[in-house]
Amino acid sequence: MSQQFELANCLRFLAIDSVQKANSGHPGMPMGMADIATVLWREFLRHNPKDPNWLDRDRFVLSNGHGSMLLYALLHLTGYNVALEDLKNFRQLDSITPGHPEVLDTDGVETTTGPLGQGLANAVGMALAEKLLAAKFNQDKFNVIDHFTYVFAGDGCLMEGISHEAASLAGIWKLGKLILFWDDNEISIDGSTKNWFGDDTASRFEAYNWHVIRDIDGHNPDHIRQAIKTAQLVDDQPTLICCKTTIGFGSPHLADTSKVHGSPLGEDEVALTRKELNWKHAPFVIPQELRSAWTAIEQGKKLQKEWTDLYASYQDKYQELADELTRRLAGNLPDNWTQVVDAFLEELEDCTSDVATRKASQMALDAYAPHLPELLGGSADLTGSNLTKWHGSIDIMENLQGNYVHYGVREFGMSAIMNGVALHGGFIPYGGTFLVFADYARNAIRMAALMEQRVVFVLTHDSIGLGEDGPTHQPIEHLAMLRATPNVAVWRPCDAVETAVAWSAAIEHKDGPSCLALSRQKLPALPHEHNEDIKRGGYILLEPSSEPDAVVIATGSETAIAYEAVKEVNAKGRAVRLVSMPCCELFDKQDIEYQESVLPQKITKRLAIEAAASQSWYKYVGLQGKIIGIDSFGKSAPDTELYQYFGLTKEHVIKALF
Amino acid sequence: MSQQFELANCLRFLAIDSVQKANSGHPGMPMGMADIATVLWREFLRHNPKDPNWLDRDRFVLSNGHGSMLLYALLHLTGYNVALEDLKNFRQLDSITPGHPEVLDTDGVETTTGPLGQGLANAVGMALAEKLLAAKFNQDKFNVIDHFTYVFAGDGCLMEGISHEAASLAGIWKLGKLILFWDDNEISIDGSTKNWFGDDTASRFEAYNWHVIRDIDGHNPDHIRQAIKTAQLVDDQPTLICCKTTIGFGSPHLADTSKVHGSPLGEDEVALTRKELNWKHAPFVIPQELRSAWTAIEQGKKLQKEWTDLYASYQDKYQELADELTRRLAGNLPDNWTQVVDAFLEELEDCTSDVATRKASQMALDAYAPHLPELLGGSADLTGSNLTKWHGSIDIMENLQGNYVHYGVREFGMSAIMNGVALHGGFIPYGGTFLVFADYARNAIRMAALMEQRVVFVLTHDSIGLGEDGPTHQPIEHLAMLRATPNVAVWRPCDAVETAVAWSAAIEHKDGPSCLALSRQKLPALPHEHNEDIKRGGYILLEPSSEPDAVVIATGSETAIAYEAVKEVNAKGRAVRLVSMPCCELFDKQDIEYQESVLPQKITKRLAIEAAASQSWYKYVGLQGKIIGIDSFGKSAPDTELYQYFGLTKEHVIKALF
Repeated sequence: MSQQFELANCLRFLAIDSVQKANSGHPGMPMGMADIATVLWREFLRHNPKDPNWLDRDRFVLSNGHGSMLLYALLHLTGYNVALEDLKNFRQLDSITPGHPEVLDTDGVETTTGPLGQGLANAVGMALAEKLLAAKFNQDKFNVIDHFTYVFAGDGCLMEGISHEAASLAGIWKLGKLILFWDDNEISIDGSTKNWFGDDTASRFEAYNWHVIRDIDGHNPDHIRQAIKTAQLVDDQPTLICCKTTIGFGSPHLADTSKVHGSPLGEDEVALTRKELNWKHAPFVIPQELRSAWTAIEQGKKLQKEWTDLYASYQDKYQELADELTRRLAGNLPDNWTQVVDAFLEELEDCTSDVATRKASQMALDAYAPHLPELLGGSADLTGSNLTKWHGSIDIMENLQGNYVHYGVREFGMSAIMNGVALHGGFIPYGGTFLVFADYARNAIRMAALMEQRVVFVLTHDSIGLGEDGPTHQPIEHLAMLRATPNVAVWRPCDAVETAVAWSAAIEHKDGPSCLALSRQKLPALPHEHNEDIKRGGYILLEPSSEPDAVVIATGSETAIAYEAVKEVNAKGRAVRLVSMPCCELFDKQDIEYQESVLPQKITKRLAIEAAASQSWYKYVGLQGKIIGIDSFGKSAPDTELYQYFGLTKEHVIKALF
Repeated sequence: MSQQFELANCLRFLAIDSVQKANSGHPGMPMGMADIATVLWREFLRHNPKDPNWLDRDRFVLSNGHGSMLLYALLHLTGYNVALEDLKNFRQLDSITPGHPEVLDTDGVETTTGPLGQGLANAVGMALAEKLLAAKFNQDKFNVIDHFTYVFAGDGCLMEGISHEAASLAGIWKLGKLILFWDDNEISIDGSTKNWFGDDTASRFEAYNWHVIRDIDGHNPDHIRQAIKTAQLVDDQPTLICCKTTIGFGSPHLADTSKVHGSPLGEDEVALTRKELNWKHAPFVIPQELRSAWTAIEQGKKLQKEWTDLYASYQDKYQELADELTRRLAGNLPDNWTQVVDAFLEELEDCTSDVATRKASQMALDAYAPHLPELLGGSADLTGSNLTKWHGSIDIMENLQGNYVHYGVREFGMSAIMNGVALHGGFIPYGGTFLVFADYARNAIRMAALMEQRVVFVLTHDSIGLGEDGPTHQPIEHLAMLRATPNVAVWRPCDAVETAVAWSAAIEHKDGPSCLALSRQKLPALPHEHNEDIKRGGYILLEPSSEPDAVVIATGSETAIAYEAVKEVNAKGRAVRLVSMPCCELFDKQDIEYQESVLPQKITKRLAIEAAASQSWYKYVGLQGKIIGIDSFGKSAPDTELYQYFGLTKEHVIKALF
């Protein structure tokens, strides 16, 4: 029995025994990938368990996140803040060892994985961030940004469509420091993959311009070691290492079956596996000599020290760059940020022309982005429609010091890659698509929210107002969907001023994504007397001269319609308040006093208008209130006709108020 | 100028002029693919313009649906019910020529396309349906089901992740009668694709086990013709024909640029294009000799007549099969359907043991499916978790007369393929995944709703009740998201009886998809006195002895919790009604009297409980009401602990009622 094998068995049995104790979890993958993990983590991975946030650490992503115990075992053994007790608490309430790796819960976990394929896309984002930061900040003899990104992925990840989008981009971006280990065990939950996964995956990745290393025995350390060395030498292509493995390796009855994927082995099989692998230690017991061979604490300190020394010299020599890198990695905004925003808002006071909010978004970018070199923009092939390019945008494919990414028609890939970029640090990514195609990116937006990442989704063409493209392109339920998602700031600004505030709020919102729902069509500039209230998410836009007895709530393109209606009825003696509500989430976070001052309980005559599903609005109008919304699919016609057709008109608002 | 070229120019100019007249639309793709379309439609496509629903017609899918004018021009010229006037009304309100092809709006449109990549997946579903129906119904010398499925797709479709999922399945299913034309024009909206689409697409498809024909000049009819002939001869692989084309072919200044993708050419460029292509006819004028060459009416009649004759003999010889085929294609249920359902519901009256609703779903399948040979089940690699297999399930890969599809880990592909199967006719597809991964399938569920297709999405593990897998796997906002989507019946049954009714309703719901949100955990059987009301979506499950002054509304796994709470408070003298609301959409469709009888306006003390985002419930409880929901992400822990943690308890309900 080689020590190498024993070291891998440490991982196997920590996984087996933790799953068994929790009576829940996924032992098969850790047992199958333990040998690969052992070689990679012990011989290649540059990291420091005592400083999980060391900026130049190699990134390790477990895209097949159900195998979380493999990662927890690695973190425990190498010296992270993951104790034996934590492993024993696997999958228990408030433990740092949840069922899937959660970036916010555990030191050393680089991203939250579990929804298959997204870890791979996150890793592409991390490798992209590394490459772009290196191009910007490294100087001759000072490679202060210089790390690999390693990914483990299973058959499931590679069956998912997002693997296509992410791998295609990694190939064209020539991410040479991205190394992907495919756990080719030919088993998925339904059984042998032969009937549903027939791809020649190696050739497929070659078609993406990847460097592919075929036929690696994933249980042979020499194979694995040689493959990693070869992969590291190729610097203009990402590498796929195809590792033949056995799921549940070592289990006499369950290895190579789907039964070992997602259930504990059972006490009997655990005992038999101990025998089979000649593992004589009790659950959670790791002999000291194996612990000593596993710990990466000293090595990690040494590696980081070398880097810290290098960085100290870099700081001396390139102080400005170093300060900028430090600022960006800390996620802090430039010192002049508030002035920049204020100046732009002041400038907008003079802007009275009609402007589509997608155009207003571009104007905001033109104003803010020159001060935010960390902004990494892009679009899923709708640049000219989303207006995500500003005057200083430079395609990263033309210049690695650029700041704009053409993601192609890949909404999900773009979004998950942006999550990876944000997780890596050094950038604030934003990316555009049509609001309706937030559908394609759905789970990546959710993951940004769950991981509390600052990512800005620019979602234009935000209603039937997009006109002739028709129902497939007209969002209806999408605002409700995004608003129902925890921790997403959904902005639907009504004009250039609100758009500018929305952008500033999105940039300042460090712990979660923002979605900007923007109009295709032009919208009038509305008079804002209290700009400072916009950031509260909902505020009084128009107050009647006497005490209001009714309130109209509007967002985005419908605010101007409501404004005209309210002005008209008030001129005729009514006393109606108009509330603009560009961001419900923020309004809901205000103190009760503020909320009451805007929407007093005693005013029960309430009307909400939004060119979207009504579901979001019952919360604000109640059973007595009315909603002018759209609860059917859209239609193909010019936008002005559609507004008539769906009753989103001044006349309809006035009628509803009487 | 060959007539062939003139024929293609008919398509080009109908597209150019219609887009110009609408002042909106996408001329580039029709101009680029006109030559391919001309060869395919005139020389190969077997169809009958006068009977667009002829069951054995070849299917034609325009996956790059923005090129809708190409399809409308084809339908017009070959003789479908699309008049010149309709082309002149392109993209106008209530025209039959909307911006993107809509299956419900226009004869001859096989599926609604526009959301890229999904048309390809729909086509895979159609080709699968054809293959399975053929295996079931064809008899020696009676190939009554025997047609091709042709797809046009652009770079955008092939960049999308779903193209990976759909193509991979088409390959392993050996769909030899699926022929895909790739419009390889190297232009997407952002410009030349060289910086964002570097795939070797031909090799990629070979890696999926497709037959690939490279290097076809998409403007050379001989090339195209030969490629189609070759493709038709390969019967055990789908074929990809790689067609080099020029987007906006014929436009002197705009061809081969992204400017021609999605905007009218402009009057000047239209004139120049006329000159360039030597097209001397005014807008919307097609000379008679070209019309004569285009019409497919006689040819279509003849083709269908041949088939009708064959089918008549088939009916004579195989009457039972023919009757069954006719029934299935009409989408009618078997005569004994109502008895089958009633008998099962009666049987369930004796079932008092705790059953997870996912298990109850399997029980319903076991009862109903033997009578529904049209049921085509499957799962995105979660068969044992979704419990989508019933005792008569047979994998189609083992037997083409089977009824179960292992889709692999491909939620989006599965869903869009199911849409294609439903569109083809002959099947009621259902497929399983976890509710949280409805995210991955989001836009395909939406498309099923928009297209009014009977597809059943089996979405298990429907709340934090799934336990230890944690927040990535625990749906929160998903019920709200699905409920906000028009025309989706979202069921969340509370026990075996409600699950059985939900399944029967889903089977009977011919004009839209149903989503069944089902529990992982066991749930108690609740006493149902009025089973017949379950189909109304919401009904009184427990009535107090005196007139109620408060109402609790619950769904799914929280109904039993509410039941215990209401029983307890009523025993202590309160008068609280419990309403079970398994399907809000259906409840909302009931007449006002029924709704009022269940939720009387005068009862303003209302409480809703659901282990999900609260957004759906304000509609029913109003501003005075209360909601026990979850508006944050879940956690990894055993389910019983999570119910405590999130306050989904009898005690909490009781407290909220006082």
